[in-house]
Amino acid sequence: MHLMQFRSLVAAALAEDLSWGDITSDSIFTDEMGRAFITAKKAGVACGLPVAAEVFSQVDPCLDFTASFRDGQEIKPGDCLAELAGPLASILKGERTALNFLQRLSGIATAARAAVVAVAGTGAQIVDTRKTTPGFRLLEKYAVRVGGAKNHRFHLGDMALIKDNHIRGAGSIGAAVSRVRARAGFPLKIEVEAATLEDVRESLKAGVEVIMLDNMEVGLMAEAVRLVDGRALVEASGGITRENLQEVAATGVDLISLGYLTHSSPALDMTLNLVDP
Amino acid sequence: MHLMQFRSLVAAALAEDLSWGDITSDSIFTDEMGRAFITAKKAGVACGLPVAAEVFSQVDPCLDFTASFRDGQEIKPGDCLAELAGPLASILKGERTALNFLQRLSGIATAARAAVVAVAGTGAQIVDTRKTTPGFRLLEKYAVRVGGAKNHRFHLGDMALIKDNHIRGAGSIGAAVSRVRARAGFPLKIEVEAATLEDVRESLKAGVEVIMLDNMEVGLMAEAVRLVDGRALVEASGGITRENLQEVAATGVDLISLGYLTHSSPALDMTLNLVDP
Amino acid sequence: MHLMQFRSLVAAALAEDLSWGDITSDSIFTDEMGRAFITAKKAGVACGLPVAAEVFSQVDPCLDFTASFRDGQEIKPGDCLAELAGPLASILKGERTALNFLQRLSGIATAARAAVVAVAGTGAQIVDTRKTTPGFRLLEKYAVRVGGAKNHRFHLGDMALIKDNHIRGAGSIGAAVSRVRARAGFPLKIEVEAATLEDVRESLKAGVEVIMLDNMEVGLMAEAVRLVDGRALVEASGGITRENLQEVAATGVDLISLGYLTHSSPALDMTLNLVDP
Amino acid sequence: MHLMQFRSLVAAALAEDLSWGDITSDSIFTDEMGRAFITAKKAGVACGLPVAAEVFSQVDPCLDFTASFRDGQEIKPGDCLAELAGPLASILKGERTALNFLQRLSGIATAARAAVVAVAGTGAQIVDTRKTTPGFRLLEKYAVRVGGAKNHRFHLGDMALIKDNHIRGAGSIGAAVSRVRARAGFPLKIEVEAATLEDVRESLKAGVEVIMLDNMEVGLMAEAVRLVDGRALVEASGGITRENLQEVAATGVDLISLGYLTHSSPALDMTLNLVDP
Amino acid sequence: MHLMQFRSLVAAALAEDLSWGDITSDSIFTDEMGRAFITAKKAGVACGLPVAAEVFSQVDPCLDFTASFRDGQEIKPGDCLAELAGPLASILKGERTALNFLQRLSGIATAARAAVVAVAGTGAQIVDTRKTTPGFRLLEKYAVRVGGAKNHRFHLGDMALIKDNHIRGAGSIGAAVSRVRARAGFPLKIEVEAATLEDVRESLKAGVEVIMLDNMEVGLMAEAVRLVDGRALVEASGGITRENLQEVAATGVDLISLGYLTHSSPALDMTLNLVDP
Amino acid sequence: MHLMQFRSLVAAALAEDLSWGDITSDSIFTDEMGRAFITAKKAGVACGLPVAAEVFSQVDPCLDFTASFRDGQEIKPGDCLAELAGPLASILKGERTALNFLQRLSGIATAARAAVVAVAGTGAQIVDTRKTTPGFRLLEKYAVRVGGAKNHRFHLGDMALIKDNHIRGAGSIGAAVSRVRARAGFPLKIEVEAATLEDVRESLKAGVEVIMLDNMEVGLMAEAVRLVDGRALVEASGGITRENLQEVAATGVDLISLGYLTHSSPALDMTLNLVDP
Repeated sequence: MHLMQFRSLVAAALAEDLSWGDITSDSIFTDEMGRAFITAKKAGVACGLPVAAEVFSQVDPCLDFTASFRDGQEIKPGDCLAELAGPLASILKGERTALNFLQRLSGIATAARAAVVAVAGTGAQIVDTRKTTPGFRLLEKYAVRVGGAKNHRFHLGDMALIKDNHIRGAGSIGAAVSRVRARAGFPLKIEVEAATLEDVRESLKAGVEVIMLDNMEVGLMAEAVRLVDGRALVEASGGITRENLQEVAATGVDLISLGYLTHSSPALDMTLNLVDP
Repeated sequence: MHLMQFRSLVAAALAEDLSWGDITSDSIFTDEMGRAFITAKKAGVACGLPVAAEVFSQVDPCLDFTASFRDGQEIKPGDCLAELAGPLASILKGERTALNFLQRLSGIATAARAAVVAVAGTGAQIVDTRKTTPGFRLLEKYAVRVGGAKNHRFHLGDMALIKDNHIRGAGSIGAAVSRVRARAGFPLKIEVEAATLEDVRESLKAGVEVIMLDNMEVGLMAEAVRLVDGRALVEASGGITRENLQEVAATGVDLISLGYLTHSSPALDMTLNLVDP
Repeated sequence: MHLMQFRSLVAAALAEDLSWGDITSDSIFTDEMGRAFITAKKAGVACGLPVAAEVFSQVDPCLDFTASFRDGQEIKPGDCLAELAGPLASILKGERTALNFLQRLSGIATAARAAVVAVAGTGAQIVDTRKTTPGFRLLEKYAVRVGGAKNHRFHLGDMALIKDNHIRGAGSIGAAVSRVRARAGFPLKIEVEAATLEDVRESLKAGVEVIMLDNMEVGLMAEAVRLVDGRALVEASGGITRENLQEVAATGVDLISLGYLTHSSPALDMTLNLVDP
Repeated sequence: MHLMQFRSLVAAALAEDLSWGDITSDSIFTDEMGRAFITAKKAGVACGLPVAAEVFSQVDPCLDFTASFRDGQEIKPGDCLAELAGPLASILKGERTALNFLQRLSGIATAARAAVVAVAGTGAQIVDTRKTTPGFRLLEKYAVRVGGAKNHRFHLGDMALIKDNHIRGAGSIGAAVSRVRARAGFPLKIEVEAATLEDVRESLKAGVEVIMLDNMEVGLMAEAVRLVDGRALVEASGGITRENLQEVAATGVDLISLGYLTHSSPALDMTLNLVDP
Repeated sequence: MHLMQFRSLVAAALAEDLSWGDITSDSIFTDEMGRAFITAKKAGVACGLPVAAEVFSQVDPCLDFTASFRDGQEIKPGDCLAELAGPLASILKGERTALNFLQRLSGIATAARAAVVAVAGTGAQIVDTRKTTPGFRLLEKYAVRVGGAKNHRFHLGDMALIKDNHIRGAGSIGAAVSRVRARAGFPLKIEVEAATLEDVRESLKAGVEVIMLDNMEVGLMAEAVRLVDGRALVEASGGITRENLQEVAATGVDLISLGYLTHSSPALDMTLNLVDP
Repeated sequence: MHLMQFRSLVAAALAEDLSWGDITSDSIFTDEMGRAFITAKKAGVACGLPVAAEVFSQVDPCLDFTASFRDGQEIKPGDCLAELAGPLASILKGERTALNFLQRLSGIATAARAAVVAVAGTGAQIVDTRKTTPGFRLLEKYAVRVGGAKNHRFHLGDMALIKDNHIRGAGSIGAAVSRVRARAGFPLKIEVEAATLEDVRESLKAGVEVIMLDNMEVGLMAEAVRLVDGRALVEASGGITRENLQEVAATGVDLISLGYLTHSSPALDMTLNLVDP
């Protein structure tokens, strides 16, 4: 992630919390300096440290933020993720916003890592979806990568994904693919959502790059994979949970997309503590 | 919620998804009209319908969005939350963004409602925290209210909350309260975080409006409540889960703050389906 | 005031003055360096020096701005408020914008200080109102504090102020207060606007934190104060001028709100002069 | 004024007041409709009615705002400036912001009108300065025009104004004018600040379009006017008050610039009252 | 193009031209109504009519804009592209901005169409580049499509394009492709810039989707095309002009990218004329 | 140009190209450092180097950008315009955006210089128009100045230009000028568009500062110049090309405005090359 990609999100978050000042800290502290640690309270995958650094840097350029972990490393309860040094009031002003970023992103990275581990050894790759918190997609998809999974498309313009509504609109899979191909630039791949083996066959005939098996039974998935036989990427999608993940992977699909990574991962608990002088 | 409070968040969310166009829908549809339903797949509390309406209105002012539920009403699987009529391409362009708002907000409202129900009959009120998704606080706190819980402070400027770091900085609870009172306007209430009964006593002496019992054992909480005896509001905070909620409420505290409402509530599953013509 | 709270206002002000360049200075100067002083032409209270520093810093990071006074200190004609050193063209480009901030804010701080001094010895506290220049409220309320007065609420969301229109809408003071209490979070205080002693009595019964005596005669105010007898804060509001301020304070009210502080204070005259080399 | 020129300022002002909601009105009102009048409490010149209309329109497009006066018309205490009809909560949400605009702009227009009247019959034209509230210049200069006075330059790029600092930088008036002329486009007029008759002579020789007599005694001004003899516009500037305005005008200057119009005009008092049903 | 994609660009353009008002039109017109035509002065391809419509709609929602052509249609001198009806002042205020959009976009569409026509009958497709006017890319790439050509990637994130600098950085084409594949999501295609036939061979071996022949001689291009033999798309790039376009197309390449479409196309001349009443 | 005038345009341009990351460079490079040169491929006038510096500075504050030319200097093929040193990935991320600015601005400066040279020795000054790329006017007009030509008005508010539509609206040139003068501030000059000698006479009588000869034959222009005889500036406008420029200048007009400078100048070709280590 380039700083440019989250700087304004950090600014918006701080505006939300600080635009009317911090009446408590501003009343109590003047120039007192101090140090603080950000510590993990749960095990998981660290994510968002450069974002937290930016939070504190925007609050006060004089704050010194030193991360002890890099995004993607595993952490366990008690691990010190980062150390802060500088004006106490500034540390306290940035605390909540920094933790909000860190906990959410680490929660997603942790969930992604768990899914990746669960399918290790199969050829399946875990991918995310567009089911992200509005305004937060870039960071949430970054957390998915940090966890070791891959990104599906970022938005409605960087890949064509022909769903059943589009197919009905065009009349057939073939017709839909033709229309997209007539308009899209060559850099765009085309994926088709298939509900049946017949859909899979039509998609192959239309020459698409990716076929999404939408809410298929595991048995049917395996059959579809055999049918495709490497002529396109195969994505399993819909209703996949931590529980049936391995079973789905065992069907031989190339990609497994998981909405819960971004829409339902719990935050990873952390805390910020001042160090006694 | 006033439209003014979420209009630009909706715009940012749509920009994220649509600023490079929707290559699939734009290739396949021209002016085809259609209808669609947004349907619940899980039981819970509806929240975010005016936001979803705004999403579709920004995508296309010609779209007609009719909600069948109001925010705060309970929904069960299969309930139709809203109906859409208008250009098919516009419906599909707004689908994901609208659902992302609805699912997240309904997830929070559902969790809040469950907590409120859990403490019903006690005098305790469920409140939220500042542990919200950066940039999304206003909406997440709205969802908490829709669920029936109350909002704690919105930001660092609308209430003074003196935590242990502040107390140490000022030397004592009394000194900290004095400093805040010297600076704050009369509209601001003062809350102090108490770790011991001694802290509670000092806070009462300083005349604060609210006392937060931070991570106290349930037994100690009950003792603190008796000590305060109505002279201030008492808030239980820290480490409270769905499991121990009732036990905490039984201590007689006035307020129970729950971070998980906003940082770890899973999305409430919904779907948008086109209606066959 | 945190830099974050006025940085973009400064940017907007400079954009207004400089976005088409400074044809005069840019034609005449290239790299000439120089020094300048900002000097008071009238007596009053200095306010806005960190804002002026930010103005020059945005115009040119190479400019060196050194304040000789701190916000809140009294100044007299001829006092040098700050010294500038750096490129002459940059000094001249920032001059007007910096002075516009300084003069307006110092004008308000001066008026606030005068009011505070006028009621010294009574228990009354001077407070401001929401009658501020649109877009400038945060800074104007800061100037009020710098002058020694206190801030009333900042916006429509950080305190409930039930006015006669609300009372009529709800049917009675008691009903209005109940409705607000049912919705507002516990951090919010409730104030009621009272036109008669009967209103005061109802407000007390409803348990509000603050009672505003709206445009009452001084005699009636004193009676109201006696009636309240410490059970709520009492605010005098409406039609109070520099002339009758002391008389109002003598009634024993806790708070006196003055709209003129922010909507009609004249600017405090200052000037910027280059130092001869 | 084109709507485009103040729409975002109105949005910023409303954000300041309403971005955390209106807890009072939202608690008490649901859909109650009503009417209200905006009434003058002091005599003066109405200004800002289209801005007030935009305020209410942004708060709620369903509000109906009907002005009974046009900007520039004289009003007296009791005059109804505008009538509002629509949801009561919306009227109350926009009230303060609309009045803040109206009172400030009408205050400026009133002061401008008074100055224009004071010099009526002489050839002098009243003009404003750049001593405006940061961010508010466009509206404040509009109010000046509404009052009947004229605008001096809007920013540092739309006219060259060579002040003593520039003259010293260039070495002489002639040199300064040459440098500006070499760089500026032909649409820009050049004004020189003259402190002595010698400066005036040099300025004439350099062929400038306007000569500013800076803080000159009235007698010297008259002499300067005779010296210029119509070969350039002559502007009186600095230290001119309501008291000596006519005396200055009598010297025959073409322009009199008054900083106090925008930096020290008191607000013109107005009020908004709901109409009893 | 979705309105959402150019609305703010239109707003910025109008701000540039109109934020200080239109002193001429505002002085002369009050409410006079009129009609106007936008007429082509040169032959070409119309592009930007919805953008022009948005310009006038932002200037004045009362203006009625009726296009007589659709984007992509050919126009000849004298053709009336659109008719306007409404307040004369509003027509004149939007005139220049609307024409600036129309002329630039139509210029690009015209150049794109000419290139497409020039290679008609070959299998080559004309594509654009990222050599666009900063801030204007979305519209310029739209104009390219309107002209009948296709879009290459939109930005640095929607396709991987491995250039010689990247190859040297990674050590070899194979290594570079591996690194990208390890990080990129499956929706992204990979293109490699090849300077020699050996590069082409390596690229094929690495399994890339597109191979760019960078500044190759036409003879070498043809050889490369034969070598690739349909296993990847082949793009000709660099130094291609209107003159050698057909020769390049004849080599059998799939794509020809032309920077000049967006960085050097002359505007297509048009004019706006009021209709005599 | 002040940094403040193009900083946000640079940010917008980078957002367009980099807001979804640079998948290629980020995959291949980590911390490798390197150097690069920006080299001219065509002869012309350098323009935009401070803008390019800002591009790279926004991409990565650690990048070191050293220009070898100043804006306005002539360059020939092979000249190194600037040298870059720093992280390779950062150089590549900023490359395209920086070149897009440089090539466009240098293209305009080059065209302006050619026109200035073409009329050297005559008294005519080359000026630009408002026919600029929407959103890019400030920079394009800067490039015109860098080329040695002058700027016509920047927007609709900094000069009055009475065109035939305005004249018809007002009834006569005299009436139009009166209306503008009644409203405009004294800093604004007035220009009238004249189609005939009679128009020129009326304009002179109205005392305007500039007369635009609109699309006149060269012979008529010369006559108009004689008629004006120095009592106003005379501008030739409309249909002037590189070919007839000198002929127009020979008529004795003061100003020649050329739309093509900004709407049709081809980019000046440049390239960025990494230096082998």
